[in-house]
Amino acid sequence: MSFPVAGLIRLGRDADEPLSRQIYRQMRAAILERRMPAGMRLPSSRRLAEDLGVSRNTVTSALDQLTLEGFLEPRVGAGTHVAATIEALPATPRVATAAPKAARISMRGKVLSTFARRPVGMGPAFSPGVPDIRLFPHDLWGRLLRAAARRPDRRFCSYDGYDGLPALKEAIVDHLAETRGVRTEPDRVLILSSAQAALDLVARMLLDEGDMAAIENPAYSGALIAFLAAGARIVPVPVDGEGMITSVFDNERPCLVYVSPSHQYPLGMTLGLERRVALLDAAAQAGAFVIEDDYDSEFHYRGKPIPALAGLGGERVIYLGTFAKTMMPAIRTAYLILPPALVEPFRRAQRNTGQVPAQVVQGALAAFLTEGHLRAHMRRAGAVYRARRDRLVEGLARTCPQLIVDPVPDGGMQLTARFRNGDVDDQAVPSGSLPGAAIARRSAGFALARRG
Amino acid sequence: MSFPVAGLIRLGRDADEPLSRQIYRQMRAAILERRMPAGMRLPSSRRLAEDLGVSRNTVTSALDQLTLEGFLEPRVGAGTHVAATIEALPATPRVATAAPKAARISMRGKVLSTFARRPVGMGPAFSPGVPDIRLFPHDLWGRLLRAAARRPDRRFCSYDGYDGLPALKEAIVDHLAETRGVRTEPDRVLILSSAQAALDLVARMLLDEGDMAAIENPAYSGALIAFLAAGARIVPVPVDGEGMITSVFDNERPCLVYVSPSHQYPLGMTLGLERRVALLDAAAQAGAFVIEDDYDSEFHYRGKPIPALAGLGGERVIYLGTFAKTMMPAIRTAYLILPPALVEPFRRAQRNTGQVPAQVVQGALAAFLTEGHLRAHMRRAGAVYRARRDRLVEGLARTCPQLIVDPVPDGGMQLTARFRNGDVDDQAVPSGSLPGAAIARRSAGFALARRG
Repeated sequence: MSFPVAGLIRLGRDADEPLSRQIYRQMRAAILERRMPAGMRLPSSRRLAEDLGVSRNTVTSALDQLTLEGFLEPRVGAGTHVAATIEALPATPRVATAAPKAARISMRGKVLSTFARRPVGMGPAFSPGVPDIRLFPHDLWGRLLRAAARRPDRRFCSYDGYDGLPALKEAIVDHLAETRGVRTEPDRVLILSSAQAALDLVARMLLDEGDMAAIENPAYSGALIAFLAAGARIVPVPVDGEGMITSVFDNERPCLVYVSPSHQYPLGMTLGLERRVALLDAAAQAGAFVIEDDYDSEFHYRGKPIPALAGLGGERVIYLGTFAKTMMPAIRTAYLILPPALVEPFRRAQRNTGQVPAQVVQGALAAFLTEGHLRAHMRRAGAVYRARRDRLVEGLARTCPQLIVDPVPDGGMQLTARFRNGDVDDQAVPSGSLPGAAIARRSAGFALARRG
Repeated sequence: MSFPVAGLIRLGRDADEPLSRQIYRQMRAAILERRMPAGMRLPSSRRLAEDLGVSRNTVTSALDQLTLEGFLEPRVGAGTHVAATIEALPATPRVATAAPKAARISMRGKVLSTFARRPVGMGPAFSPGVPDIRLFPHDLWGRLLRAAARRPDRRFCSYDGYDGLPALKEAIVDHLAETRGVRTEPDRVLILSSAQAALDLVARMLLDEGDMAAIENPAYSGALIAFLAAGARIVPVPVDGEGMITSVFDNERPCLVYVSPSHQYPLGMTLGLERRVALLDAAAQAGAFVIEDDYDSEFHYRGKPIPALAGLGGERVIYLGTFAKTMMPAIRTAYLILPPALVEPFRRAQRNTGQVPAQVVQGALAAFLTEGHLRAHMRRAGAVYRARRDRLVEGLARTCPQLIVDPVPDGGMQLTARFRNGDVDDQAVPSGSLPGAAIARRSAGFALARRG
């Protein structure tokens, strides 16, 4: 394995300095500072060009110059190496050796730890986005886990199959075709340890510092924090009765868009079909990717569910699914359906970031899906949630005339009530006087919603 | 929850511009560009100062100026808000709205996906760092999983206990006291989905772009990639018969140091006690943190194991443990023992990055530890590994006289053989002519070792 030289080089695309000069200068510094030690073998110029996202000519021009100056030496049939003679040069002192820096949380770490997403409580009542775990067939789940543990697939007991157990990928593909109108292939599925891990990975893989990321307003706070942690500039997109207002792209150029089209979180409306088409068109035109967070769309109570966005346009949509709502959060398993171009880089990155669920959980999940237990559980639990939704809407209308529920969501496991009188400051309502946790607290600005 | 304003502001500590001016300027731009929309409530100045790591005076001076200019308005008893009047101003066009940018992998994403850490193969033979899963008590493990699934602790079925199941944290504390000479408290334990996830989290939390991170040479490639992905400058530290040569800190100022003191990976030597003390002293003086990767130290075959570094100096050491070697990699559970100052930020960040194992696996693991099964398994498997080590060393001496094994490792599950004749180019040895996978391929430069 050769040294990941590309990791040492940061190219400024908008800088006045030509790219090949930037490569030359940074590589020279790395050699002088011994970050690229004498004798080190470089990757091929083709590989380097690929890693840096520049033309091969740009790379060879930098390498030629460094060879001319004696920093690099080509060896016949053995690639290019950092010249052995470099050992004789005095090492250039590195920048910032002056004073020891007190250990501290990094800037990125500060963003990651700014939000304290509080526990949402254990009860099934008034905890938005949390399923009632009393409905879950714990005993059956235990039996499937035991079976998966006793007959483990030896091929996947070690570090193989890091991107997901093949049996689970296949089961997910079938599940999505059946429930969400998405046709895909197991190769495009990536299994991760949570929806939050998935959002974090997407943000890191697609957002450079300063890139714009568009996000529904209000939205799931976990998406916002993932984008902020990647250094993105946030473009909040307003929401109306039809969901996200996609005309915002007329003025903005986000390279990543986050949307919850099935049931907008937390408000509950469904993104209209025209909006969907407009969103995909705009994304294609802008060269942007769209994250479709389909967190609880399997629970749908009226008519046919609208097929997922990923079923409309696979090239630009990153579909995010989870078993946290259909089963329980503690399962800690979510998945991405990736556009073909992203599969290989995401797979490698997942291996390097380690966000992977235990093999035994994946094996038991595959059985839970293929043996029809998920379908049965969804039917049972869905009937309960639907009845609770109706009871809550009716009860709120009777006892809290100052509140209005609009839209009444067609599915999912939370609803939003608003004050009839728009001037009421929800923050000023004494806690305890209303079922507070169930009410998305909207302040005038960017409203954040916790979802566990 | 108020908007995480701190996430919009990047302070340059070394810049000529005073900090309060930087805050003022960046907040003003955020308001003009509607990234901080009209009416938005700001966090308190105390909170903001804390998040940004500056004094409260610095923050209030910036906020006062913005209030004076009409960008902010204080509301009596309700905090400071972005002025409603901002709506009337034309929105400042954002930077880089000119041309749509083609979607592509970010620079960080390129680093994360540069390494394709290849699967290490399924066999127990000649796959360094991979336990023999045929020795594992799969049936017992299945029974514990079933029991944990049937009697789930309701408190942790949802999103609570994200940092780890209390029962598992307590079991780990006892395990470490018994086997590694580390005394700690459950509150300092953070449970993660893999050792790689743990390294990734540490790197993101402690390394800013350009910070120096020191790492053994050769070393586990997963640590290197985690540091590179965080934008760190790598300081490779040579290793001799006593392990990492700590005098390197005389010239360098790393803020994070990675070391595998029990059995250096992949060479197998143990870091001497004097070196340990010197390393901790140097880290304390430099204000640096030390990651102690204790990946397989539970397997120790001669004499008493040297206690972990974390037992010597808790303030600076981040201890990384895993069940991938003592049980099997597919368990996908690892843990960090954190210095007290890092506990709270790391907990929040883990919640925001989602690297968390299923509750049922944690429950079964807690039982596996507290009921003594881990101890029994380690004794059985350790005896087998020890016999295999002896057989391999003896066999290599008999059949491959050109190789030398020095040191013969005191524990663990891999060994390194070198060529007696230092001039042999290991890359030139035809594959198949030697048990290649067991031999760390050292080129002249930075040697990388895969460990799954």
